[in-house]
Amino acid sequence: MALIVQKYGGTSVGSPDRIRAVAERVKRFRDQNHDVVVVVSAMSGETNRLIELGKSVNPEVPAREMDVLISTGEQVTIALLAMALERIGCPARSYTGHQVHILTDNVYGKARILQIDEKRMRTDLEKGRVVVVAGFQGVDEEGNITTLGRGGSDTTGVALAAALKADECQIYTDVDGVYTTDPRVVPQARRLDKITFEEMLEMASLGSKVLQIRSVEFAGKYKVPLRVLSSFEEGPGTLITYEENDMEAPLISGIAFSRDEAKITVRGVPDKPGIAHRLLGDIAAASINVDMIVQNVGADGTTDFTFTVPRGDYRKAMETVKKTAGQLAAREVTGDDKIVKISVVGVGMRSHAGIASQMFKVLADEGINIQMISTSEIKISVVVEEKYLELAVRALHSAFALDKPPSVSR
Amino acid sequence: MALIVQKYGGTSVGSPDRIRAVAERVKRFRDQNHDVVVVVSAMSGETNRLIELGKSVNPEVPAREMDVLISTGEQVTIALLAMALERIGCPARSYTGHQVHILTDNVYGKARILQIDEKRMRTDLEKGRVVVVAGFQGVDEEGNITTLGRGGSDTTGVALAAALKADECQIYTDVDGVYTTDPRVVPQARRLDKITFEEMLEMASLGSKVLQIRSVEFAGKYKVPLRVLSSFEEGPGTLITYEENDMEAPLISGIAFSRDEAKITVRGVPDKPGIAHRLLGDIAAASINVDMIVQNVGADGTTDFTFTVPRGDYRKAMETVKKTAGQLAAREVTGDDKIVKISVVGVGMRSHAGIASQMFKVLADEGINIQMISTSEIKISVVVEEKYLELAVRALHSAFALDKPPSVSR
Repeated sequence: MALIVQKYGGTSVGSPDRIRAVAERVKRFRDQNHDVVVVVSAMSGETNRLIELGKSVNPEVPAREMDVLISTGEQVTIALLAMALERIGCPARSYTGHQVHILTDNVYGKARILQIDEKRMRTDLEKGRVVVVAGFQGVDEEGNITTLGRGGSDTTGVALAAALKADECQIYTDVDGVYTTDPRVVPQARRLDKITFEEMLEMASLGSKVLQIRSVEFAGKYKVPLRVLSSFEEGPGTLITYEENDMEAPLISGIAFSRDEAKITVRGVPDKPGIAHRLLGDIAAASINVDMIVQNVGADGTTDFTFTVPRGDYRKAMETVKKTAGQLAAREVTGDDKIVKISVVGVGMRSHAGIASQMFKVLADEGINIQMISTSEIKISVVVEEKYLELAVRALHSAFALDKPPSVSR
Repeated sequence: MALIVQKYGGTSVGSPDRIRAVAERVKRFRDQNHDVVVVVSAMSGETNRLIELGKSVNPEVPAREMDVLISTGEQVTIALLAMALERIGCPARSYTGHQVHILTDNVYGKARILQIDEKRMRTDLEKGRVVVVAGFQGVDEEGNITTLGRGGSDTTGVALAAALKADECQIYTDVDGVYTTDPRVVPQARRLDKITFEEMLEMASLGSKVLQIRSVEFAGKYKVPLRVLSSFEEGPGTLITYEENDMEAPLISGIAFSRDEAKITVRGVPDKPGIAHRLLGDIAAASINVDMIVQNVGADGTTDFTFTVPRGDYRKAMETVKKTAGQLAAREVTGDDKIVKISVVGVGMRSHAGIASQMFKVLADEGINIQMISTSEIKISVVVEEKYLELAVRALHSAFALDKPPSVSR
């Protein structure tokens, strides 16, 4: 008998029928004598409907009131799910964020969870009830309603699991787990039975948007065993683990990629301290996120400087950089928004040299030119021309044998 | 500068446009330096939509979860109204029932308010904010969400006014006040500038459904000055007063009537103690409300017994009574569901004899036969054949000069 926190997103509870299906699934866990706490999002479309309603009354929606408004979306779902559970003979109690004291800071619209009082939930679980909690919402110290922002319900699920020291936090989505890469690009992509927390962070931030990165970070902080599953099919999903020295860890767990990239190069900048700061400081001031940064020292006392930005910010970034480059007496500014970033991710590469060179060889064999390289302990990222995306991902997926289950001894 | 509690019903906040209109009205009071606390209902249609949603998931809706579900209706409105107020430069804060600690008992669906903590509202008022509170809802001692049942938002308004010792509680509806009788029956019906609390109770319970009777009772208990106004037109509305000895009180304030009536007569019941109890006890056990009761002692040691029930319960009541009457060896049971009840109401009649006889004369002059009579200190009710309703109400309205403003000296 375990204590399980389950989180269902908006699509999973998008209609009365789907809510009844979730109730049936929850009941199956109860029938196996597990204690279950369920976190739900608003029914799909509901949050947007409420936002539009708010905007129709006040286009510059006051943040505090917006949270009062949109938090009703999850409240509707908790009531409906508790009703559906009661109907099939599964005693249940629904709770809003304030009722289980999900204490947050007071940043409306993107509050952070500070504390959760799990007493009330424990009492219900002891009485054999399923506890249904509204995701995405909390209250600040003064009792004002707050919401957690994008992916907030995932965070609620993880936070409840941490507070209750749950045996597992199950995140139900419309995919059946985390894949070695996007199956739309590589049909041989394989669902991973498990993935380490750090790999998941790299995969999530690189565009495999199964889980909101914030909830993964939260799970990592409290070492909450997290599992991603499909709410529409049966299956084991993917477990996110925290094993430090897993002998069975595969070299490479997956290949992430992002099309949302553009690069800007500043050539012939006089090589003096503070150059990077000047260039990137102006970009940051324009609220543009910079991702990869590469700097090469040139021969003539100048330096070349390249960095990537989200594709949508390319134009604005170019304008900003050109102005700064002029002031710095740089030789030229060039850019390209037809690039992509491809990364191989795996904790196994920590202890294995040669992954990088193997990756570069695979790409070279396919005649793909690498424009930028960036590495971390468990990830190697390259920037290549956009048209090579599918070719590169497929070649790497095959070269690292990701379509085959990992062998135990290596 | 006064402290005013305003309550707006579902029709008054039925669309974004109407919510903006309410905000404008609230602002006009603020601009006159009044402190304003606003209580709102759910947007018209919203509560029914939520109830249907609940039923689609579980036809036997669990009461606790139903309250969690439908209380979101008012929460949406408070957020929208606060947004609309902020937009026109009127600082505002919205609060759910639990946020201002509207403590109720734990009878889901028809909870009663036990206590309100007005501190938080005072703090906001002192800061120049309009306080917007969700009507119809509260929390029990354990923090479970409760709703107050039909007309609950009126009750919330009155309860807040009592807790805040407000100078006035204004109930905005789709009529511009309380009338001497239904204008659809008597075009000369006149809006009353004021009406006493007791008269209002009699008028409300007799079918002039401007205010829910529960909120009027509540207002009476705490002597909250209550005013009924239109949310669509300007006007002073009708003030409900608590003056004990108002020299200016008119003899008769209004004429109420109800078509929802049927009567049942049991003839020739042996006149023994306990007969009324037997007859009415069985009716009560069948959950049928009995209104007027008349008993006459006959000549032969038997008694005749007549009472009225809601028209919808007529059939069921007849069946029940026939069974009981058989056991009591009554001579016969007859009934009629083509009757109406007409009442003249006025605190003035307390100190003036002859109102009853004047009423009976008016009806006799019109050739209307009176079937039953029932009187209280400030009300005389008669039951007549349904077809005479309009004729009787118009004749009485005219005879008691209700179409003319009351003269000061009488």
